[in-house]
Amino acid sequence: MDGDVHIRSIGTALPGPAIDNATLGRRLRMGGQWEQWVETFIGTRSRHLSIDLDTAKPAHSLADLCETAGRRALEGAGRAAEDVDLLVLATASPDLLMPTTANVVADRLRINGVPTYQIQSGCCGAFQALSLAQQLLAGGEYRNALVLGGDVSAKFYDFDLDFATLPPDQLVHYVLFGDGAGAAVLDRTSAPGAAVIRQLFTRLTGLDREPGQTLDWYGPGDRGSDRPPAIEDYKAIEERVPLMSAEILDELLDDTGWQRDEIDYLLPPQLSGRMTTKIVDLLALPGAYEISRVREIGNNGNATPFFQLESAFERAIPGQRLLGISVESSKWIKGGFAVETV
Amino acid sequence: MDGDVHIRSIGTALPGPAIDNATLGRRLRMGGQWEQWVETFIGTRSRHLSIDLDTAKPAHSLADLCETAGRRALEGAGRAAEDVDLLVLATASPDLLMPTTANVVADRLRINGVPTYQIQSGCCGAFQALSLAQQLLAGGEYRNALVLGGDVSAKFYDFDLDFATLPPDQLVHYVLFGDGAGAAVLDRTSAPGAAVIRQLFTRLTGLDREPGQTLDWYGPGDRGSDRPPAIEDYKAIEERVPLMSAEILDELLDDTGWQRDEIDYLLPPQLSGRMTTKIVDLLALPGAYEISRVREIGNNGNATPFFQLESAFERAIPGQRLLGISVESSKWIKGGFAVETV
Repeated sequence: MDGDVHIRSIGTALPGPAIDNATLGRRLRMGGQWEQWVETFIGTRSRHLSIDLDTAKPAHSLADLCETAGRRALEGAGRAAEDVDLLVLATASPDLLMPTTANVVADRLRINGVPTYQIQSGCCGAFQALSLAQQLLAGGEYRNALVLGGDVSAKFYDFDLDFATLPPDQLVHYVLFGDGAGAAVLDRTSAPGAAVIRQLFTRLTGLDREPGQTLDWYGPGDRGSDRPPAIEDYKAIEERVPLMSAEILDELLDDTGWQRDEIDYLLPPQLSGRMTTKIVDLLALPGAYEISRVREIGNNGNATPFFQLESAFERAIPGQRLLGISVESSKWIKGGFAVETV
Repeated sequence: MDGDVHIRSIGTALPGPAIDNATLGRRLRMGGQWEQWVETFIGTRSRHLSIDLDTAKPAHSLADLCETAGRRALEGAGRAAEDVDLLVLATASPDLLMPTTANVVADRLRINGVPTYQIQSGCCGAFQALSLAQQLLAGGEYRNALVLGGDVSAKFYDFDLDFATLPPDQLVHYVLFGDGAGAAVLDRTSAPGAAVIRQLFTRLTGLDREPGQTLDWYGPGDRGSDRPPAIEDYKAIEERVPLMSAEILDELLDDTGWQRDEIDYLLPPQLSGRMTTKIVDLLALPGAYEISRVREIGNNGNATPFFQLESAFERAIPGQRLLGISVESSKWIKGGFAVETV
């Protein structure tokens, strides 16, 4: 054992079948051009959803997906429920306000008698949860942390809307996101197949900046409210996320002392297929293999980095270097990690 | 500077005027007996609410209250925004899902460039947030943490209901809770007027136990849902919280080596005036002065311990010992702290 914190395993879960743009377009009653429009200007080809598309009823809860991802991560690390002495879950879309999904998932996995934290968070949520777990593990009090991240959009799908007249800043929500969950087991022991965290940070940079994304919820007292539930300032996101990504990359390279041509895998932000391509081109890491899942499963919010890490670890051999970059646009949080396989 | 983490200051905020049971009873169109019933069986005499009782419109957001509490805590500690290098906010009732209230408050207080975490949590939320800050500060990377906790019920007040026929497990929600926010500045330096944290823990104990409280939220797709928004299993709470409080007390005494007659202040759970009295009687600390705010301001959820700490610090002289106890009933979390004034 050394002072470093390691990622021992990753587990993920996706609900139902992949839903392509043609299928989604039919459900939203959009015309035939729409499918091509999404392919061309968004670049996301399919996603998985937590609702049954025919009935519009929830088919998978966030707890369902996190339970599956968590179980897979524990199995991958060879850990039992009683080995877990810290649980952190990040999401923007908890099943309920209370009890937290973190505690429901803990119960289902039979994790008990330990501190649990649920982070309310957006696209940097997995980075926030991993960072919290890393810092708490480094304190020496805990042995194994189960870190979870996921999002489900079930409560946000309203098929009664007239999508043909919905403003783009609201419609885009139906196109960009996909549901899913991911999990990781972190500990302080080094073992073949694990990866050591060399750097990991999240940092608010929202001072005097308008929110780039707003996601509202309703209580019983304001169910009749006409506040728009989800708004994306897509232009601000398109303008700022690439610049912030470049700043995060520079900071990770500074912190680690790694050179641009020494990076084996780049895990870029996953807002849309098209944006991800733009960002990867801008970052221009000559030897880095891009690990993106966004074209097939959409932006999975708090689950995204787990899907990327899973794909990266499947390919990676010992001694390779991964950089992960994320930007949370609701209030402009920077997130970055540098990981090395051992 | 030593390795200990200190509470340097507390700030709190309450919305609007105190609302007594008679006023609340009139607004809920309850008969004249109701006021006496609440006084006798609940024991809470008044509370402050984030809505305007006449119009039923929100008058104070959680961000408003947290901003005020946070500003007061910073002033009390003699700290400026740029001194804060860690922010943790705990709530069950965020203003929005995204951006988080933590980040909105950070912006308003001009805190930037630092990690921020928003914990989704119930009655142990302040303990969870303080515990996170304590552990992260102990790591040595941060100097000053601003810890916030608060709840607002605005989205849950639905005055169109027929309260006379509402089941008690839903009506009780309108009686027990009050809105408010609290904040604390934590650091690793000792100074007159500060208090050192000797012990602080939170621990899930929810295995195979049904939720004691459920708090739902609605998205645009299920605004027509007839799911009850808030349910209290008051019987389970009444039965279990005193027992769990006694276990927490024993654990705090074990951990600190403090004797039962050496405790100067007891900060008990604040579910209702009546329950708090029962618990204090059960805990039977002969020399401890009880610090409860529940009778005047209700159960303030994530803000409660800050109000209790504020009152305790106003009375305490150096070298006194405080024990704080909290139980989160949604999924049965134990929280405890032992604090000593310096």
